[in-house]
This record gives sequence, C-alpha cells and structure tokens, in this order.
Amino acid sequence: MNIIKTDILIIGGGPTGLFTVFEAGLLGLKCHIIDALVKPGGQCSEIYPKKPIFDIPGIPEILAGKLVEDLLEQIKPFSPGYTLAESAEKLEKQEDGSFNVVTNKGTTHNAKVVAIAGGLGSFEPRKPPIKDLEKFEGKGLEYMIKDPKIFENKNIVISGGGDSALDWTIELEKVAKKVTLIHRRIEFRGAIDSVEKVQKLKNKLLIDVITPAEVFALNGDSNLRSLKVKIKNTEKEINTDFFIPLFGLIPKLGEIGNWGLQIEKNSICVNNALDYQTNIPGVFAIGDVNTYPGKLKLILCGFHEATLMCQAAFKIIYPEKKNILRYTTVAGVNGFDGSKRKSESAIIKSIE
Amino acid sequence: MNIIKTDILIIGGGPTGLFTVFEAGLLGLKCHIIDALVKPGGQCSEIYPKKPIFDIPGIPEILAGKLVEDLLEQIKPFSPGYTLAESAEKLEKQEDGSFNVVTNKGTTHNAKVVAIAGGLGSFEPRKPPIKDLEKFEGKGLEYMIKDPKIFENKNIVISGGGDSALDWTIELEKVAKKVTLIHRRIEFRGAIDSVEKVQKLKNKLLIDVITPAEVFALNGDSNLRSLKVKIKNTEKEINTDFFIPLFGLIPKLGEIGNWGLQIEKNSICVNNALDYQTNIPGVFAIGDVNTYPGKLKLILCGFHEATLMCQAAFKIIYPEKKNILRYTTVAGVNGFDGSKRKSESAIIKSIE
Repeated sequence: MNIIKTDILIIGGGPTGLFTVFEAGLLGLKCHIIDALVKPGGQCSEIYPKKPIFDIPGIPEILAGKLVEDLLEQIKPFSPGYTLAESAEKLEKQEDGSFNVVTNKGTTHNAKVVAIAGGLGSFEPRKPPIKDLEKFEGKGLEYMIKDPKIFENKNIVISGGGDSALDWTIELEKVAKKVTLIHRRIEFRGAIDSVEKVQKLKNKLLIDVITPAEVFALNGDSNLRSLKVKIKNTEKEINTDFFIPLFGLIPKLGEIGNWGLQIEKNSICVNNALDYQTNIPGVFAIGDVNTYPGKLKLILCGFHEATLMCQAAFKIIYPEKKNILRYTTVAGVNGFDGSKRKSESAIIKSIE
Repeated sequence: MNIIKTDILIIGGGPTGLFTVFEAGLLGLKCHIIDALVKPGGQCSEIYPKKPIFDIPGIPEILAGKLVEDLLEQIKPFSPGYTLAESAEKLEKQEDGSFNVVTNKGTTHNAKVVAIAGGLGSFEPRKPPIKDLEKFEGKGLEYMIKDPKIFENKNIVISGGGDSALDWTIELEKVAKKVTLIHRRIEFRGAIDSVEKVQKLKNKLLIDVITPAEVFALNGDSNLRSLKVKIKNTEKEINTDFFIPLFGLIPKLGEIGNWGLQIEKNSICVNNALDYQTNIPGVFAIGDVNTYPGKLKLILCGFHEATLMCQAAFKIIYPEKKNILRYTTVAGVNGFDGSKRKSESAIIKSIE
C-alpha cells in the first residue's frame, strides 16, 4: 500500500491549517493537508470568498478569498502536500507511536503528529429530499463542482437560489451545451453582480430559468437521463446529463467525532494552557474546531494556536533536538524549495 | 487635577497595544495608550522600521514600519487617546475598583482595566559614560528626537555609528545650522543607503564627520555650550547647542516591576488558561511583556492575547451586559468616529 508520510498531518485546509504549514516550515517540519473540499481555503474559499474580513490583525480589509491566496503565497516555500476532495475517516495509532489517517477513498497518511484544523467540520452538501438520490450520486448527480471539464457539451440542471447556484450557472454556461436553473422561488439571493449576469443570460436565451419550481424525481438506469420538475400545479420532464443541487453546505465533525476525542458541543476539547493538544497525545486541535475556556472562533486565534502547536509538535517529532525560537526578521525564511526570503543586512563601511 | 478617563488603559503602543484598540472597539470599549516613545509602534517603529517581517499571518512580507501604519489605519475608527513620550510609573487602586496610572510627568489616567502591552519594556536610551551628564539633560543634551523643530539653525553634535545616528544626521542636516557626526570607529553599521547619503553630505562639506573619536566632557552653565572630543591622542573642544548621543535603547520593565505583579525573568506572569490576567485582578499583560508555559514572543501571539483579554475586560467594565461575539464579515466595523466598514449585502431579486 502506498502511504503518504509527513511530519505533521493537517486535517483541514482553512486559514489555520494553511498557516500551520508556515510555522511548521520555520521549524523544518513538513506538512500534508487533507481537505474534503476541492481546493484549499475552507470556509473562506467555499462560503464567502467575496466577503471582506476586517479583523485580521494588520489588514484593515481583505476579501476572504484574497486572504487564502496570500496565505498560499506565504506557505509556498514549504511546499505542503495535499489530499483534496477526500475526508479523514479513520485514525489508527501505530506501534511506533505514529498515526495512520485513512480517508473515505482509502488514501492512507502517516505522521507522528496530527493537527485537526477542521473549522466547523467538513462541509457536506445539503441534499434535497428526492427519492433514490443516492442511486445517481456520481452518475449524473453532483453536489460540488470538482472539475468543470466533465460538463463540457452536456445538458445540466442546476437547482438553488443563492450565490453558488448563480455563480455556477454563469460559469458552466460557458462550457455546457445547455444550462437550466431551477429555483423554488422567483427571488434569488446573491451578489447583485451575479443576479444581473444571470438575468442577462436568460434575456439572451443562453440559459433557461424555471421558477418557482422544484425537482422532485430523477430518472435513468446506470446514469441520470432526465428529471421531473413541479412548476406550480403542472409537472414537466426535462432530459439532462447532470443534476447539480446547490443548497448549501452543512458543517459536520463527521468521523472525527468517533476517534475517541473529548467533544463538547461539536468542538474538540484541548489544553489551552499549554499547546492545544487533545486528550490523545500527539493529536492537536486548532482553530474553530477546538474549544477551551474563553475560546473565540476567530481566524487570528487559530493562527496563534497553530504556532504554539508547532512547537509542541517539534518536541514530539525530534525529542532530542533543542529548538530555539528565531525571528524571521533576523533569520529570514528558508524554503524547502530552496527559496530564501531575508532582510537586507546592515553594511559595515567606513566614511572617509 | 485633570484625569484622563478611559475604559482600557493600554501601556505600550507596539503592535499588540495597537491591535487591542481594535478588538476593544468592536466591543464598544474606548482605549487610551501610554508610550515612552514619541510615536506609536514600539520596537517596530523605533528599532527596525525598515526591516521586513515574514511571519505575520496572511502577509508574506511587510516592513515593520508599514505594519504599524496598517495597524494605525485599522484602529482609526476607534480613535484612541495617546500619552506619548511619558512612561507609566505608578499604579494606584481606587476605592471604586478602578486604577489610576500616573506617568513620570505626572499625567494621571483612570480606567477599570489596565492592559500592559509593554513589549520588552520601555526603551531607555543607553547613556555614554560622561561626567555630569544628568546636568545637561533637557538643556542641550537629548537622547531622543521628539521634535526636530527645536534644532532649527542650531549647532548639533550627534554621536553614534548605527542607523539612528546616520538617519538623524541626514534629517537634521536639513534644518540645523551645522551637524557634526562623531563615532568611535571609522566604520559605520547601517543601511547601505544611509551610509552612502552621509558620505555624500560629508563630501559636499555639508556636515563634519569625526572618526575615530569620542566625546568625553560637556561644558556650559545653565545650557550646554561646548563639548570635548578625544581624537586619537589629541583633544578638541567643539562649540555646540545640542549633543545627541544615539547609542541604542535598552528595554527596561522599569517602574512596572514595582507594582506588585508576579515577575519571572523580567516578564509578567499571566493566566494563559483563561484571559492573560495578572495576579492583580483587572490588570492584564499581553504580548512580549508576559510569560506563561509555552509562551512565544511573537507579534501574532500578542494579537490573540489582546483579543481574549478584551473579552475579559468587557465583563469587568460591564458586569451585567452580555456580550455576543459578532463576526466583522457579518456585522461590519462601526467606528466611534461614525465611520462604517461593511460587507456589501446580498440582494434579493427576482429573475424574470
């Protein structure tokens, strides 16, 4: 079996998980990130990429998506590994004291330290109440767009009335044969720009918008072939290759809840008086996923927790080595990729 | 007596002290900052304004001086008060449970919560070993440049070989009648740009540079009139209005060390398991000035500590009010100055 080995295995690629890579990197530790979403950034990328955040210290205003971009730039020198669109399912303690973490797709990772930076949990799609839904999952029914290429020249029905439904309607119209947007109300709720773009696409007859309407049945054999829509008091059958219901994501702690960790109100209890370690030595929880007296679920707190955690991780991974805190302003940042960021040093020169 | 009243009195205007204003402001609390230096920013402004920092989360690289600028921009909506160029000397508990903090100049402040964000301490100038030095302090002898205007059309002798000596030689040459730079070695240590500028000023005969040389005596009556310099084996007397020795700053906890706080290795012990409160209830210590198990003297840790501290401060100041954490992305930032930063809200609109 092919096992991905690393120093710190990070579960969750949101801001806290990403910044962990940087602090670990300064200590010479390698990281690998598992995330259920198709790209790093967590909530910031998936839920509110275009919303400004005002409380990142030293940054008066930044779009959540841009914060993720900047974090990715900051951690680039420490080239983390990624297992994306998979969720961590099993934690198995090994004889040598390390942990194996296995995903829902069977990908196995091994590390001495596991850092759960799972945010509010892994985001699972909210599923519509349609019979036989599971039968078509991966066979025409998609809850997330992982790779827009699979929709090229296909007939697609998107359902939903928020930003995701609007944005993907706009994006997929560019590649699909035909996009139909179905929503149970006539009103859409989203960025003004997106609503207007969809209105224009409809006016130009480039897409169909059916409202108020609900998909209530899926048909097909091995693959989806058509779906049935209730429009007011009538019913209609629409032939389609894909059905993409975009009804939002629900954060769920998921399988991590069964790992034997001490849990309180859907959050993992940690020792905030020291290093944000959980009740399982070697397993830490940082950022919004953890709880302790006085906990605030703020990004800036996750950054601090990640930083202290990395120091503890170093001691676990190199019990004999001594680690001395070095300031980046003095020591610079030496990337695993050979890159160097360094302050210009003062020169010593005579004035004559 | 004129007493400055505020909600949270912050001692120290470095990054941690500044960010405290923001987090307090989000909770509706007003802040006032005392700092021994003439401008906010602490070490970042005074010691290494032109050096890059690489470990502020979300900012791959920023000059320390720019970080301070950005923090000042971020806290602007919450218009803090400042008592600058004074250092906190006395802490007096009042009958109503609040504290009076009195500076070395007698300025008195009153607040229910005191947040010591003193960094490595207040920076005191390193004084040269010259007899009767104290006699001329404020009478021609200056350790810090608070207001360059007092040097207009005056004769000035600057002593030192680092960035401060170089930078102030360049700056004051613009306003002074004559600037003489004296250093005990011929080599200067500083930014290449500054060394070259000073060399040019000397070449154009706009300044005098005397090396290797040392000032060893000051003369005058009520004010400084001249000083004596040892140049190799000879001595020389130079008439001057001002002598500015710039030999660096030494951080000292100073009078704060006598306030009855639990101190360990020049740092203030705090309860990191909860709110960074010291052994004196109502007095907190945040940032580089504090210590606790696992403490890292990093700016990003100060940001987290300030944030948790503000929550505890709120409970002390408004014991009956309930405080609910509101995200800036959702609630925006409502400045005390009437300013508003807010995310563009989603619109609800029909597509027809």
